[in-house]
Amino acid sequence: MKRILLKIAYDGTNFHGWQKQEGLRSVQGEIEQAIERAFKFSCNLFASGRTDAGVHALAQMAHFDIDDAVPTNKIKLVLNRILPPDVQILSAKKVSENFHARFSAKKKTYQYLLCTGKKNVFEANRKAYTEELDLSKMQECALLLTGEHDFKAFCSSQTSAKDFVRTVYDIKLYKKSRHNIVVEVTGNGFLMNMVRILVGTMVDYSLGKLDKKRILKALESGERSCAGRTMPPQGLYLKKVFY
Amino acid sequence: MKRILLKIAYDGTNFHGWQKQEGLRSVQGEIEQAIERAFKFSCNLFASGRTDAGVHALAQMAHFDIDDAVPTNKIKLVLNRILPPDVQILSAKKVSENFHARFSAKKKTYQYLLCTGKKNVFEANRKAYTEELDLSKMQECALLLTGEHDFKAFCSSQTSAKDFVRTVYDIKLYKKSRHNIVVEVTGNGFLMNMVRILVGTMVDYSLGKLDKKRILKALESGERSCAGRTMPPQGLYLKKVFY
Repeated sequence: MKRILLKIAYDGTNFHGWQKQEGLRSVQGEIEQAIERAFKFSCNLFASGRTDAGVHALAQMAHFDIDDAVPTNKIKLVLNRILPPDVQILSAKKVSENFHARFSAKKKTYQYLLCTGKKNVFEANRKAYTEELDLSKMQECALLLTGEHDFKAFCSSQTSAKDFVRTVYDIKLYKKSRHNIVVEVTGNGFLMNMVRILVGTMVDYSLGKLDKKRILKALESGERSCAGRTMPPQGLYLKKVFY
Repeated sequence: MKRILLKIAYDGTNFHGWQKQEGLRSVQGEIEQAIERAFKFSCNLFASGRTDAGVHALAQMAHFDIDDAVPTNKIKLVLNRILPPDVQILSAKKVSENFHARFSAKKKTYQYLLCTGKKNVFEANRKAYTEELDLSKMQECALLLTGEHDFKAFCSSQTSAKDFVRTVYDIKLYKKSRHNIVVEVTGNGFLMNMVRILVGTMVDYSLGKLDKKRILKALESGERSCAGRTMPPQGLYLKKVFY
């Protein structure tokens, strides 16, 4: 047996998220089925983390174990022939048997796309539409959120997490074009909906719906109601996992 | 009663085409439902023509009749609030009662997107991937296909059409970027799958799979086997209807 690490891109629009669920279309389910069909080998695929329904990946990472007889350099090609148009293997490489896509991850970068322009049907599932935003105000807010904090206020109440301390190393903000803003958040780990709430907090701060005091209170008290809105999933992309 | 003409954009990926079909998601069905929900008024929507499953529209045109009491200038806004992300009303205006979205149409332009580059999951349902193409060879082929012809060889065998004579006014070809080619076909009317087969013929000609003699034979004999392949629906966009 050997361990294979896949780098995977997917358009999350038509998936009920990463995780396999009975009777629902999931990224994990599609890839596990493709592996079984291609190599007559039933496997469990372990991702760096789940992504919710509608969330995209530019480079999700996931590992599985397979018989040594399967040539590593054929895996990408063979799987891509079978997989549907909205999921694609970008690379497949052998890793050590101690490697774990989730537990070996040191940090992750997520990207969030905001659009202040007109809705376009071809991009409606790829970004979130908002009112006009002030990049320098968002930057102010980003600085408050960067660092090691208890992010309980920035987490869905449906989480099973017990420890809410995470480190956000960096929040980058830039305009891709006149109406398109990119937010890139890098951290050592993220709670459920955390990136979507961090971005929602920056948006609400920019719109004057939250002030500095309230954000500091969110970080201190852990009260969800002190942080900003949860942005919709379709603007979110898992961009990079660092090992 | 008054007649309203809608200009509509849709991403065809998740629709079983324009036409309403029992139990299947269609563009016509979504919009008729939205009209009923918004204005408590059951209507029939008549498009400039059907589009197949997976085919997109930058500007489909469709008319319906509604009570004079409904303010025309509210229709676009109200429908867009109800419609799902992949369909959008671009405009709604009052037209004369003799106007018919299909029968009043004088010509139409379709656009087809070809990509000779690497597959990208976010664009996989928006264009067709092909081998490297030669634009000047495609242009040669386009000239053979332009004009008034019997296009029986360029039509699906499932058609119910009896008359196959159509006029292709113009075929424009250009590179949008290094790996992306746009084909724009304007004609007075199109048979079932006709644009997809015209583009498939240009692609096959460029790849050396068809020669000039064979294309002239297709136009003379009406034999489907003499024309090129049927390109997939996801590269096709209804771009403009001329009245």
